[in-house]
Amino acid sequence: MSQAVWNLADKRGPIVVNDEEIFAAHVGGKLGVELRTPLDTERALSIAYTPGVAQVSRAIAADHTLAQRYTWANRMVAVVSDGSAVLGLGDIGPAASLPVMEGKSALFKAFADLDSIPLVLDTKDPDEIVETLVRLRPTFGAVNLEDISAPRCFEIERRLIEALDCPVMHDDQHGTAIVVLAALLGAAKVLDRDMGALRVVISGAGAAGVACGKILLAAGVGDITLLDSQGIVHAGRDDLNVYKREMAEQTNPRGLTGGLAEALDGADVFLGLSAGVVPVDLVATMAPQAIVFALSNPDPEIHPDDAKKYAAVVATGRSDFPNQINNVLAFPGVFRGALDADARRITEQMKVAAAEAIFSVVGDELSVDCIVPSVLDPRVAPAVAQAVAAAAGT
Amino acid sequence: MSQAVWNLADKRGPIVVNDEEIFAAHVGGKLGVELRTPLDTERALSIAYTPGVAQVSRAIAADHTLAQRYTWANRMVAVVSDGSAVLGLGDIGPAASLPVMEGKSALFKAFADLDSIPLVLDTKDPDEIVETLVRLRPTFGAVNLEDISAPRCFEIERRLIEALDCPVMHDDQHGTAIVVLAALLGAAKVLDRDMGALRVVISGAGAAGVACGKILLAAGVGDITLLDSQGIVHAGRDDLNVYKREMAEQTNPRGLTGGLAEALDGADVFLGLSAGVVPVDLVATMAPQAIVFALSNPDPEIHPDDAKKYAAVVATGRSDFPNQINNVLAFPGVFRGALDADARRITEQMKVAAAEAIFSVVGDELSVDCIVPSVLDPRVAPAVAQAVAAAAGT
Repeated sequence: MSQAVWNLADKRGPIVVNDEEIFAAHVGGKLGVELRTPLDTERALSIAYTPGVAQVSRAIAADHTLAQRYTWANRMVAVVSDGSAVLGLGDIGPAASLPVMEGKSALFKAFADLDSIPLVLDTKDPDEIVETLVRLRPTFGAVNLEDISAPRCFEIERRLIEALDCPVMHDDQHGTAIVVLAALLGAAKVLDRDMGALRVVISGAGAAGVACGKILLAAGVGDITLLDSQGIVHAGRDDLNVYKREMAEQTNPRGLTGGLAEALDGADVFLGLSAGVVPVDLVATMAPQAIVFALSNPDPEIHPDDAKKYAAVVATGRSDFPNQINNVLAFPGVFRGALDADARRITEQMKVAAAEAIFSVVGDELSVDCIVPSVLDPRVAPAVAQAVAAAAGT
Repeated sequence: MSQAVWNLADKRGPIVVNDEEIFAAHVGGKLGVELRTPLDTERALSIAYTPGVAQVSRAIAADHTLAQRYTWANRMVAVVSDGSAVLGLGDIGPAASLPVMEGKSALFKAFADLDSIPLVLDTKDPDEIVETLVRLRPTFGAVNLEDISAPRCFEIERRLIEALDCPVMHDDQHGTAIVVLAALLGAAKVLDRDMGALRVVISGAGAAGVACGKILLAAGVGDITLLDSQGIVHAGRDDLNVYKREMAEQTNPRGLTGGLAEALDGADVFLGLSAGVVPVDLVATMAPQAIVFALSNPDPEIHPDDAKKYAAVVATGRSDFPNQINNVLAFPGVFRGALDADARRITEQMKVAAAEAIFSVVGDELSVDCIVPSVLDPRVAPAVAQAVAAAAGT
């Protein structure tokens, strides 16, 4: 096929990639295993395999803490998915999620030099997912949950944090929340706005929406309106799950009801975290100097060029437009910092520290088209790791 | 520490490796993940991650068979252990088994260019082990079971072969059986003996002992005496599990009872697959031109120099003595051949073909100190893979 992948990229974005190139790059997958030392002599075999390896196994059997030092597991991140909420594609199953998980593992390696393996699970049952990872515990040093649908993701993450004595983070929740907070710090700074005064609309009350709501509340944003597929989340609704109900109590201070039109009217920030569509007419109703983060992947809620007609700052999750708000700014450094600090948990302080570190890297380059660093900026992951490790000790 | 690892290697073996060197080589583990293409440009990110990867995920969601082509899973071998029977060290647990599993994965890469990850399980329950791998099924393309104790290993392997539509092999059983058959073909040839006329004593009725007994029976060896920790396995015993009982019916044609002394008296072949010890005096009672395979790892049942006083051919499992009968001659090529042929099962024909391929590589180099190829011989894995793939089609 010679047609372009995505008509936006094809027609307007700076990067044109066609199907042929994408599929060719995926043949055989994106990952490989490498040997840290070659096994090409009898001596090397005697050390790495029998009989030498028995000494190491004996030592670990006598003192389990030595597994941290003498295996790869301690710094290895399991990227775990059940394929139930993959990108903006929905429940496409574990096999179809694997290219995304391989990509994630590749990013861990490229940006934080962490080894990582995808584990895709042919079950959506929270009990079974938790149980499976508990059984696999000696295999890895941390768990990055990925593309697991809400509300199951909340329970699965909570139970895994309780069950496993290692860092666990659902990236769709907290990785997104961290980069959104970092980007909003950047946008507010460039527009000289006070975070506490912003009226923020979050479209999507799934994993990312709820986590973003929470981190923005913690960051002092006072007026958040959360929307799910049924409209504005408010206390008067009787169709809310426990997570949305909790959000209903903490957001929507003006008691709005209705849908996106009611929410966006006069709002300062639109944060799109669903696979929905935002008509440009509604962006026109936002407050002056509006901020639009259209983060649905692969298709943003509104084309950046359309949003730009009315908004002062526009960002997407894509690598082919300016202001890419992508989790890759956060998760490699977050896990690296947590593992460097030998942290058992990834705490709220560590997440906020990560967001501030990302924001700090932008520095003097801050502009409406540069509210976050480039995902390729090599300063980001080390800065995040350092900030997270420091926060882990507090 | 500067002392030698193993006094045999220290005093007499050709390769001296000390603790310091072994532990230093294991710091951080032996494996890493590598990217098959670099992720250092926005374009590369657009292809391997968002938005490009969505095209691949969409395609696999529409046609699951495409996961074979566009992920690493199809050619990736999971090396799975519960740490219950590690080398000759016994039940040292999953964490302590990990260095061995990393070594195994390293060997898959080095010898057959297969990617492989260790999955070590914190459960010994057969139901839970089977269930866990069934849930992980989309993650890998084949399963190498490793260092799982008998008799659970028989049930676990059988149930996984039934449950998973991919190659599954317990290497301690069948990898060992393949290389033992290959070595016995070599020893019989160099001594000009007929396989069918050999009296074979197998010490150890665990995973390897039972599998070796079966493959030797299939290869036409008529007189096999199997021993477990209680002595000779015979039909008159009432303490046999179902697997040993089955072997009791197929072996011991002369109705021997007693222990190692009774078994070895006049025997042609000793095959050691336990952590036991064989006194040199008993080797003296074997038939002339005896064959001794002392395969326990890391400590052979008898030192090769002692065995050599009475035996014509002596082999161990170690890399620091001649005639290393090591599974690494078999498993990389077996899995590579099975995956190359897209085989769903590793059949008995494929295993025998592997043994004959290993034997065939020795060729004109055959001697009492060269009954099998070197584990470093680069001809072995391709020959095995080709033979196994050919046998898969039969």
